[in-house]
Amino acid sequence: MKAQNWLNVIRWNEQGLIPVITQEASTHEVLMLAWINRMALEETLRCGEAVYWSRSRKKLWHKGEESGHVQKIVDIRLDCDNDALLFLVEQTGMACHTGRHACFYQQLQTTAENRDWIAVDPVLKDPKEIYK
Amino acid sequence: MKAQNWLNVIRWNEQGLIPVITQEASTHEVLMLAWINRMALEETLRCGEAVYWSRSRKKLWHKGEESGHVQKIVDIRLDCDNDALLFLVEQTGMACHTGRHACFYQQLQTTAENRDWIAVDPVLKDPKEIYK
Repeated sequence: MKAQNWLNVIRWNEQGLIPVITQEASTHEVLMLAWINRMALEETLRCGEAVYWSRSRKKLWHKGEESGHVQKIVDIRLDCDNDALLFLVEQTGMACHTGRHACFYQQLQTTAENRDWIAVDPVLKDPKEIYK
Repeated sequence: MKAQNWLNVIRWNEQGLIPVITQEASTHEVLMLAWINRMALEETLRCGEAVYWSRSRKKLWHKGEESGHVQKIVDIRLDCDNDALLFLVEQTGMACHTGRHACFYQQLQTTAENRDWIAVDPVLKDPKEIYK
């Protein structure tokens, strides 16, 4: 490999991170949004599965390392501003730690009196069964 | 409307922003990633079209205000961590300022010697024609 221009093209933020949208390759469902740094992106390419940077745990997060719900990389895209990534993946099991298939399950619903976020997608597996 | 609990649920970052993924409702293509604050989200709901916060111009950005390429809101979702939004929209024209339909047109391609981002999606309209 030559000098890593492909990594230098990316406009990492002050923390050395950019957001990644993860989308299911077959259905085009948006599964989640995570964050990634250089090391995590290199590791993603090395192992062929999504590896993110956990901002809360401050370490590499090989998605599915505990649950087995790994994400096999099908395609990687960079946006026009070079500051956001899109992963197309084959998701094993489910993406969301709540046991739902995807993380965007809260829908904004509006009535005459109120607005609220309502969980509209089903829990497919008890989280206690996912993280044993 | 009652107290805006639905806005307080959102975990805005230190700058009062969160990322928004914008996806075409009909095709499920991911069009772009942008940023939004409270004011922009309220304005989105008021007018029924996507309004973001422009971090570079530091002002509300009603998508399509110049180009006419507005995004009619079909559905709004919040993720499990309450720190990312998903807009499902009907896109008029194209989403990307380069004249492509979507912003994620650079594909990571790998050869034996190198990796690089290659523009793989067509320019549908000359940007000079979009922003006159």
